Amino acid sequence: MRKGKIYFVGIGLTPKHVTLQALEVIKRVDEVYMDSYTSLLVDDGNELAKVLGREVKYLRRTDIEDKSLRDAIKKVDEGLDVAVLVVGDPHIATTHVALINELRMRGYDVEVIPGISIFCAVMTYTGLSSYRFGKPATIVFPKGGVEYGYPYYVIKDNKERGLHTFLLLELDVEKGVFMKINDAIDILLRFEERYREGVLSLDEEAVGIARLGGKDQLICVDRLSRLREIDFGGPPHSLIILAPKLHFVEEESLKVLKSEFRERCSKAP
Amino acid sequence: MRKGKIYFVGIGLTPKHVTLQALEVIKRVDEVYMDSYTSLLVDDGNELAKVLGREVKYLRRTDIEDKSLRDAIKKVDEGLDVAVLVVGDPHIATTHVALINELRMRGYDVEVIPGISIFCAVMTYTGLSSYRFGKPATIVFPKGGVEYGYPYYVIKDNKERGLHTFLLLELDVEKGVFMKINDAIDILLRFEERYREGVLSLDEEAVGIARLGGKDQLICVDRLSRLREIDFGGPPHSLIILAPKLHFVEEESLKVLKSEFRERCSKAP
Repeated sequence: MRKGKIYFVGIGLTPKHVTLQALEVIKRVDEVYMDSYTSLLVDDGNELAKVLGREVKYLRRTDIEDKSLRDAIKKVDEGLDVAVLVVGDPHIATTHVALINELRMRGYDVEVIPGISIFCAVMTYTGLSSYRFGKPATIVFPKGGVEYGYPYYVIKDNKERGLHTFLLLELDVEKGVFMKINDAIDILLRFEERYREGVLSLDEEAVGIARLGGKDQLICVDRLSRLREIDFGGPPHSLIILAPKLHFVEEESLKVLKSEFRERCSKAP
Repeated sequence: MRKGKIYFVGIGLTPKHVTLQALEVIKRVDEVYMDSYTSLLVDDGNELAKVLGREVKYLRRTDIEDKSLRDAIKKVDEGLDVAVLVVGDPHIATTHVALINELRMRGYDVEVIPGISIFCAVMTYTGLSSYRFGKPATIVFPKGGVEYGYPYYVIKDNKERGLHTFLLLELDVEKGVFMKINDAIDILLRFEERYREGVLSLDEEAVGIARLGGKDQLICVDRLSRLREIDFGGPPHSLIILAPKLHFVEEESLKVLKSEFRERCSKAP
């Protein structure tokens, strides 16, 4: 029997980021699944199924982690075409790349449809330059009492090279873990206390970002000491540690952001 | 009189990358302009106006460079809402960021709509990890006999940190300048001859990319000496110089690419 085709479809950060190509694929396939745990769609509230005009079956963690996507793959074996929706871009998270490679090596016909990723959208919405971002990193909560200090050294390395650092904050939808900017700053400052390499100080300006791309997005540019006090609201949150020097166009962009979000960035939690 | 609103709308790399949000804005505004010189839409052939269901007025270099966008801004002053379409994402090119900031500081109501940028799509289509890309760079042709060796040092710096380098190649639609991968490799190897820091060799594997996201996209993974001989066809082209070590998932991704494009990557120019 002819096997079906499996599409990994990036749908961006909010349902309004869905592309014409993604929509065309979603309308055409036999079944639509959604990875609902590695990331979080902003402004969803069941808007997605409405926008797509299709029923969406939500995959749980185990469906992704054991790399079987049981139901979805079974449908493909039965000759159906299947789409697996992914928040942002399907190739940004390693989980998906590994899965996609595995399926391809097992002979499946897999197509990947790009979506708007936070790695690029963060430049659009802040106006910081794509040429001035170094390696990104993810800040996670300590596990079993052990802190994962790697992001501290990524920031150090980027700063030494005059580059910004984009930091994703831990997010686990099923476990209900959503790191806030406030937590992330506490963790970074603890790293500074421990490693003492002079990488971070409470006085430096950074950019706190909540619900990027959403109707209710909030972008605050302020000193770390101030950002730590702001109520950014619901997830997802992320943070940019700025390069020591800004390009003058970037300075202007931050000035614009400060004025645009002035009122909402002055609220304490 | 009430001024209109001006939207800078990212439309991705091909008309099929247009998002629902972009489409909604484009359908709603009074006039649609397109920056047609800083970048090149893949698979266009007037498909764009058809996809959008609107007339699109093409802006010339002078319209962008003197930062006036004469006609467009005049319309906004007259109270009309205007969209300026940009290939990829509006905030990836510094030209647009500067323009957007200037308009905002002059009191205009400007909204930026993100699009799929090549900086992210290159990860989707190659399967290389977003966490392993360092600073990107652009390779340009020598101007007045002077070569711009900066990309060589960006590659050196990224390699020393175990990171990939994404290289855009010079592209000037109005002047008809489209750097090919073959030219870019020649330029890089001349840098190596001149600076002799052991950054690049003909034997190392790299990734040549043509018309990313298009129906006719071509991605070849091979030694630089081989890539230099391949006929990649029309623009735009770009190039990835790989980190010295690959993650095993990345190795798998490159294997998949090699097999997918095997036949087309074996053609000489």
